[in-house]
Amino acid sequence: MEFTVKQIATLLGGEVTGNDTLAITKLAKIEEGRPGDISFLSNLKYEPHLYTTQASAVIVDRTFQPRKPVSAALIFVENSYTAFTRLLEEYHTRLSFARVGVEQPAYTGDGTQVGDQVYRGAFSYVGRNCRIGRNVKIHPHAYVGDNVRIGDNTIIHTGARILDNSIIGQYCVIHPNAVIGSEGFGFAPQQDGTYKTIPQLGNVILEDFVNVGSNTTIDCATMGSTIIRQGVKLDNLIQIGHNVEIGKNTVIAAQTGVSGSTKIGENCVIAGQVGFAGHLSIANGTKVGAQSGVGKSIAEEGTAINSSPAFGLKESMRSLAVFRRLPDLERRLSDLEKKTDK
Amino acid sequence: MEFTVKQIATLLGGEVTGNDTLAITKLAKIEEGRPGDISFLSNLKYEPHLYTTQASAVIVDRTFQPRKPVSAALIFVENSYTAFTRLLEEYHTRLSFARVGVEQPAYTGDGTQVGDQVYRGAFSYVGRNCRIGRNVKIHPHAYVGDNVRIGDNTIIHTGARILDNSIIGQYCVIHPNAVIGSEGFGFAPQQDGTYKTIPQLGNVILEDFVNVGSNTTIDCATMGSTIIRQGVKLDNLIQIGHNVEIGKNTVIAAQTGVSGSTKIGENCVIAGQVGFAGHLSIANGTKVGAQSGVGKSIAEEGTAINSSPAFGLKESMRSLAVFRRLPDLERRLSDLEKKTDK
Amino acid sequence: MEFTVKQIATLLGGEVTGNDTLAITKLAKIEEGRPGDISFLSNLKYEPHLYTTQASAVIVDRTFQPRKPVSAALIFVENSYTAFTRLLEEYHTRLSFARVGVEQPAYTGDGTQVGDQVYRGAFSYVGRNCRIGRNVKIHPHAYVGDNVRIGDNTIIHTGARILDNSIIGQYCVIHPNAVIGSEGFGFAPQQDGTYKTIPQLGNVILEDFVNVGSNTTIDCATMGSTIIRQGVKLDNLIQIGHNVEIGKNTVIAAQTGVSGSTKIGENCVIAGQVGFAGHLSIANGTKVGAQSGVGKSIAEEGTAINSSPAFGLKESMRSLAVFRRLPDLERRLSDLEKKTDK
Repeated sequence: MEFTVKQIATLLGGEVTGNDTLAITKLAKIEEGRPGDISFLSNLKYEPHLYTTQASAVIVDRTFQPRKPVSAALIFVENSYTAFTRLLEEYHTRLSFARVGVEQPAYTGDGTQVGDQVYRGAFSYVGRNCRIGRNVKIHPHAYVGDNVRIGDNTIIHTGARILDNSIIGQYCVIHPNAVIGSEGFGFAPQQDGTYKTIPQLGNVILEDFVNVGSNTTIDCATMGSTIIRQGVKLDNLIQIGHNVEIGKNTVIAAQTGVSGSTKIGENCVIAGQVGFAGHLSIANGTKVGAQSGVGKSIAEEGTAINSSPAFGLKESMRSLAVFRRLPDLERRLSDLEKKTDK
Repeated sequence: MEFTVKQIATLLGGEVTGNDTLAITKLAKIEEGRPGDISFLSNLKYEPHLYTTQASAVIVDRTFQPRKPVSAALIFVENSYTAFTRLLEEYHTRLSFARVGVEQPAYTGDGTQVGDQVYRGAFSYVGRNCRIGRNVKIHPHAYVGDNVRIGDNTIIHTGARILDNSIIGQYCVIHPNAVIGSEGFGFAPQQDGTYKTIPQLGNVILEDFVNVGSNTTIDCATMGSTIIRQGVKLDNLIQIGHNVEIGKNTVIAAQTGVSGSTKIGENCVIAGQVGFAGHLSIANGTKVGAQSGVGKSIAEEGTAINSSPAFGLKESMRSLAVFRRLPDLERRLSDLEKKTDK
Repeated sequence: MEFTVKQIATLLGGEVTGNDTLAITKLAKIEEGRPGDISFLSNLKYEPHLYTTQASAVIVDRTFQPRKPVSAALIFVENSYTAFTRLLEEYHTRLSFARVGVEQPAYTGDGTQVGDQVYRGAFSYVGRNCRIGRNVKIHPHAYVGDNVRIGDNTIIHTGARILDNSIIGQYCVIHPNAVIGSEGFGFAPQQDGTYKTIPQLGNVILEDFVNVGSNTTIDCATMGSTIIRQGVKLDNLIQIGHNVEIGKNTVIAAQTGVSGSTKIGENCVIAGQVGFAGHLSIANGTKVGAQSGVGKSIAEEGTAINSSPAFGLKESMRSLAVFRRLPDLERRLSDLEKKTDK
């Protein structure tokens, strides 16, 4: 994507000195700026770079006065750091939604309706009777099964798999090779030692603004729905079992697993490599430390837990501290025993 | 899929009152039933719903006598709960095998033979010299390499990767994005600090009735075969190293890892996020708790182990209980020391 | 692939007795050898198999003298074990690079340049403005985004995803369904409890001789680059966060996770299911035990750590040993207390 310095200045409500017709294609740090880049100067520690940078434009505070000649165009704004962040976001959004149209070959099943401004990458597959919203981006090799609904402005990245009957909200991002709605782990032990498959006939519902990381798996419900509520952010390589529900705005870091039918509340913060047993209920605002093993429900909101099996964060920190001194503890105990024996 | 009430009654050996020509397309709970749905009434607590449900048909016990008028068709059977479960299974099986034929484009290499009733999804790839059995379902974007054999009635879901020389049995299900037969982690350290690749030239064998979860990886053997025996069920995001063997009817929950050359017995139950070191031998019927780290072989059948590193389940539960009281233990010890010093 | 006995003898610098025109297609153990196979005899314990094997050729030591008639052709070399290993490597390399040409359909974006001897599998996707080196193998269903550079002799396996702007070195192997350069987990909490996406605009750089395992994920940097240095070997199902750097010749086993901005040194050996917190600095030559949780930086080179949270390996082994005796320890303490009370 390409903008002129003038277009960026207009976007940020800034004023330009220097050449405002230059084309900008990238954002860069001021010390690494090259022709075609835009950068910013906020902390004056970096001011010397302003006079040597090859960047085509630099965003500066309105109050800033250069003490030497500057080759870059300058865009003067209220707060250069905030303006640069806004520019990053704008750039990222435009980049994410830049693609429109269908690359061939792409497969679309009967009865499927697709909104306008949609991107269909080559080798993408959309099954029958789907409803694909406006401005949805379905990247190459992405798979959408039958009877799937996808809300406006949602991005399905390359290799992501959205199985039959899934319902995906608006402004969701499904990262590469994530699997949503595959059949979960339901097997009933038989008397001869074999296992019989328990049919998994439910689906997965993702509400709006949900992010699903690369290679993360979310199983469909046995009956009913596995539900990921609005604003939930899931990192990479996470496992979400059948019939799980994750509350609004909860974030979960990579490689965590949630077993079947567990219900996690809103605004929880779950670190990486955590495991949850099945059929638990976790209160809103629960915080769980990395590698914890959660085997019991949490009833009180805002509880912080840690360790495997998990208990109160503070208590676990104290136990872990003593754990490191255990050999010393044992020695002290032996010494005492000797003394007492005498 | 669509059945008439009469067809379902015949399948279940039941008798119908009401309209047996209605079309049924879905199964639902009685309180959520809508036109086109079939439901069941077993626990009479739910009887009031029978008189208000919009479901087209309800399965009831032969002995049941409605006390009010019912708009749904009723199917009378010996045991309504068992009959509904059977219907679920039948529905699930038919759904799983409903697709037949080839969606274009699909790629098939030279010398490959394919049985009848096979489904080939669009963008599926089957390499050279493969033998694909009868009624096999190869979903869109699935990959089957060269010289692969796949038994009858096996399902390869979207994005699953079956690498060269793999042998897959009958009635297996390979879930989306699983990887079977990729080259494992074999590197020999060299004197200059670099690593040299140890060629991985073996394959993977899956016997009949094996399930492999989404995004699970099973490495091929260095030489010979990595073997997953009949009836094994693997959940999502599991890692199986090269030359591993997993015994009949063993089940492994999500995110567990088994290092190279370890041999796990039959009828084991392995929880989630467990790690096995390499070159171990684990006895039949071993039970391993979640997040355990198994560093030693288990010789005695039916052993239950837990914790990281793992030891006896009961012993580990006792140690973990004391772990939570460690700060208190330390305090008691200090008190004793003071007393004894006096 | 097919070679004659003579071709193999020439490759190994050996001399043949018997039929040197036989075609060899596979390598096998001497006791399992069948027509078309080549095997070797090093340990004389296996000599009896030489006289019964159906293999077409057997590699033996130059000093070896058969005591009975042998139907296989014999290739005499200095060291039969070393020669067989070399043959394995040669076979593996030729197999890995055997494919050349384009299977249709394959998608290539505008402005992309491709070297000679390249393999493009059916349904593989390469975006715009890429530079693909000589002898690169891009397998079926592999995805390469825009502006990607891939060095000579690199293999991108089926279903691997190389996102926009990634730079991949020479002689790398990216295994099936690995994801390189997807957007990482960057979300800024807002006052209303929701999270705002922090744009991830950096890339991933893989230097030469890097291996990335199946279903492993490497996030792009927020700005700048996530860097995997020369000779790094990553196993399956590993998570590498944004802006991480992994030093030369470091090896990491399966299911380990490295959080954002952590820098791991050279020649480290990291076992499986380890977790690293973010923003750490780990010294060269660090060794980390399986399932460890690394929460602090390691300053001293060659340190061995273990446990969660991780501390010195030896110390942790001692603490873990006492952990198993904790119930006994508690009992001894209680006994002492009773004694002292008297």
